[in-house]
Amino acid sequence: MALAKGRGLFWPTAEIYGGAAGFYDYGHVGALLKKRFENAWTSFFVDGGEDYYLLDASNILPEKPLVASGHAALFNDILVSCTKCKTYYRADVLLSDLGIKVSEGATAEEIDKLIAENIVRCPKDKGMMEKSRPFNMMFDLYLGPERSEKGYLRPETAQSVYLNFFREFNVLRKAMPLGLALIGKAYRNEISPRQGLYRLRELTQAELQIFFDPENWPVALDKFLDRKLNVFFYQSGGVEKISIKDIVEKHGIPKFYAYHMALIDIFYKQVLRIPESKFRFFEKGGDSKAFYNKVHMDIEVDVESWGGFKEVGGLHYRTDYDLKSHSKGSNQDLSVNIDGKKFMPNVLELSFGVDRNVWMIIDVLFVKSEDRSIIKLPPYMAPFAAGIFPLQHDEAIEKAAETLYRKLKSQFKVGYDSAGSIGRRYARMDEIGTPFCITVDYDTVDKGSANHGTVTVRYRDEKKQERIKIDDIEAFLAKHLRLDVQSLY
Amino acid sequence: MALAKGRGLFWPTAEIYGGAAGFYDYGHVGALLKKRFENAWTSFFVDGGEDYYLLDASNILPEKPLVASGHAALFNDILVSCTKCKTYYRADVLLSDLGIKVSEGATAEEIDKLIAENIVRCPKDKGMMEKSRPFNMMFDLYLGPERSEKGYLRPETAQSVYLNFFREFNVLRKAMPLGLALIGKAYRNEISPRQGLYRLRELTQAELQIFFDPENWPVALDKFLDRKLNVFFYQSGGVEKISIKDIVEKHGIPKFYAYHMALIDIFYKQVLRIPESKFRFFEKGGDSKAFYNKVHMDIEVDVESWGGFKEVGGLHYRTDYDLKSHSKGSNQDLSVNIDGKKFMPNVLELSFGVDRNVWMIIDVLFVKSEDRSIIKLPPYMAPFAAGIFPLQHDEAIEKAAETLYRKLKSQFKVGYDSAGSIGRRYARMDEIGTPFCITVDYDTVDKGSANHGTVTVRYRDEKKQERIKIDDIEAFLAKHLRLDVQSLY
Repeated sequence: MALAKGRGLFWPTAEIYGGAAGFYDYGHVGALLKKRFENAWTSFFVDGGEDYYLLDASNILPEKPLVASGHAALFNDILVSCTKCKTYYRADVLLSDLGIKVSEGATAEEIDKLIAENIVRCPKDKGMMEKSRPFNMMFDLYLGPERSEKGYLRPETAQSVYLNFFREFNVLRKAMPLGLALIGKAYRNEISPRQGLYRLRELTQAELQIFFDPENWPVALDKFLDRKLNVFFYQSGGVEKISIKDIVEKHGIPKFYAYHMALIDIFYKQVLRIPESKFRFFEKGGDSKAFYNKVHMDIEVDVESWGGFKEVGGLHYRTDYDLKSHSKGSNQDLSVNIDGKKFMPNVLELSFGVDRNVWMIIDVLFVKSEDRSIIKLPPYMAPFAAGIFPLQHDEAIEKAAETLYRKLKSQFKVGYDSAGSIGRRYARMDEIGTPFCITVDYDTVDKGSANHGTVTVRYRDEKKQERIKIDDIEAFLAKHLRLDVQSLY
Repeated sequence: MALAKGRGLFWPTAEIYGGAAGFYDYGHVGALLKKRFENAWTSFFVDGGEDYYLLDASNILPEKPLVASGHAALFNDILVSCTKCKTYYRADVLLSDLGIKVSEGATAEEIDKLIAENIVRCPKDKGMMEKSRPFNMMFDLYLGPERSEKGYLRPETAQSVYLNFFREFNVLRKAMPLGLALIGKAYRNEISPRQGLYRLRELTQAELQIFFDPENWPVALDKFLDRKLNVFFYQSGGVEKISIKDIVEKHGIPKFYAYHMALIDIFYKQVLRIPESKFRFFEKGGDSKAFYNKVHMDIEVDVESWGGFKEVGGLHYRTDYDLKSHSKGSNQDLSVNIDGKKFMPNVLELSFGVDRNVWMIIDVLFVKSEDRSIIKLPPYMAPFAAGIFPLQHDEAIEKAAETLYRKLKSQFKVGYDSAGSIGRRYARMDEIGTPFCITVDYDTVDKGSANHGTVTVRYRDEKKQERIKIDDIEAFLAKHLRLDVQSLY
């Protein structure tokens, strides 16, 4: 957090008032990094392969759809508190932290039984625990002049997409599969929000919902058959390195599901550049699986500051649960008719926590050596494309540097820095992951020099330096910053 | 609204449940248009001139800062209702609609007096009006396991920026002016939300807050001195076409304020391409001016579907009101010290309603002629850069068209359309403002043809067609879609 604050990444909301638990604001560097993640995600998942689309929807939803979706009744955590100090705990977290296994949908009665059996006391003062109770995690609010209409802040962006499916399907000329993506906020009144952008009360999700005919979704799986992934399977109870071919054939995972596992694997390893050993899928089964999911895998990354592998996203085969629920709730038949076949579309959900991914990227790509610290971001992920430095306080040099800066800034996000030694300026750029530093010096402006009209470009990771013509800098940056997702499919 | 629904622009939130008053969702075309507006705004105001920065912050704020800012006590509308039918009205809107002048900060007592004097009855059933009362427009919610901590959805994005000013100022090496921008949601429990994205309960704002030393903010006004703007001045009570020079000299508007009027004028006329006659500034004064503003002008556009000139943004010289309030509320001294001079920064706010601007752009740039309807968006504002069409069902043609489409889609948003006649396909692209249609035909794939390797590019507005080499299409689109803001400063 100290690093995040000092570098303009993020810090608690309303920090000058002491902050607010579970809420963070992004500073200028963090906001750019978050945006880069969102753009890379959109390029890869929405624009990369099929023709998918992006929506933008209200954070506030009326009550009815969230009754129909089951959230009003079931979006609960079990809450326990200490009889002495009154501290509140999320029961599953309290018990898990003590090494006690809790199933995903455990009821208050089951929790009380586990507390009694294991003689659980308050970690703070050893007080006895109160009887536990379900706690709905949605924020409710009241609309209209009489505050008589109940509404909720949406607990997941997915619901906004399900509610818009039917109109989009009709606008988009009625073809399947239909992918609708949404990047936006979701809200959860977490009992114990945690540090490190992991458990927030207001979070950003990037989700792609793909609506499809379960009997007819051909995917180009052949090219990925030999690709090997790290997967924890619920049945076998261990992590294995396994090919897509075996995931389908030995574990019976549907082909369309395995295809998207491959895409997610490519995104983490080749777009975000997360080392292979730090990335895996973790299958949920039995009690730990959400009831509406037919296949449910978490996307996990090994994050040192979180103490190991933690969830940063998920791949969920939600069947027709969502559209069926909303058909019933709205009294509108949301089934579709394609070439004379009437059916309720199924949903495959690719879900990512944006804030968690931002934190994860910083943690995993942060490298501290003796002489410097770097965030080794891929160039297209870096908040700033380049730093532009005049070597010294000299009118001609500063003018040339500023001209270059003005020229570049209409196309790229670049930073101008003339303060302190070049070494100090390199360090500041390294610290926020800027891939290139461009220095304008005497040679640049000296018409008699063999290097007239050139600048020094320094590469962040290798510290390699090369002279490049000023006129070629735009093309150089464009080449290095381009994320070509087409070649990854 | 019919047009908006049919073309994938926007429609009521939770439409299948009958919608929710004051809430809209954007479909894929609308979400892209909204994003284009946000990107053009950011390019021009944040990246274009000075080195300004973008933040990203929580929608939920704790109670204290909104008490300090005055919103908890003062962010009220006056509510009146009918004794017979119980319909609620926003008093100022009800009275204005009847041609009765109401001052901006009118109290409930003043409203009751106006109602009595003018013998105002319910427009629906002529019932007598109840006594009016203030109604706080913020949505409140309750955080934590006991729901004991009160919070609010922010009523304006500006507050998020003021709360983050002090840390950003320190991260960004303590220079003035410091511009911090934020594009995000704001929430207002409007008594009578209106159609047409004009008065929403959840809206998107794009705001730039510039913090500066009131005694020292040099601006490059010279180049704009002769620029003429349409301005309504409070004192003179009429609209005049007046130069920046005269705005400063005759009306005593501060230079830094006039400079930003010129920028906003450039943005509307040259970036968004709103006709000169439809754009003006409208100065607020006396009762109609927010009490913390020293100079306050609305940005207004003449929008047919709104019945005339309406507010789409504002330029507000807020003085040091905001930082002073938060200094007091947080017990933190937010004044700054630059080169030995200690002072409380002043704020100039450039505020834009994104949803209103999206609606306005569609209304103003929509052209319906006998044979077609077009949205005449500047190319960089169009949801889709181009439509790619195979002329006919032919294997070679379709393959070539798809190859071109795949190549372009990693860099631009393009649409592929092979359904129906070419005329019908042109029409569909015209209707959502796509600037170019690219047709692959027999000549494209016929090695014997003089036009081998070329495609037909059709320009939206002129219907002009030209043959261009396939290999040059990327450069062609890049050139036409580039928004060069540097040249506008």
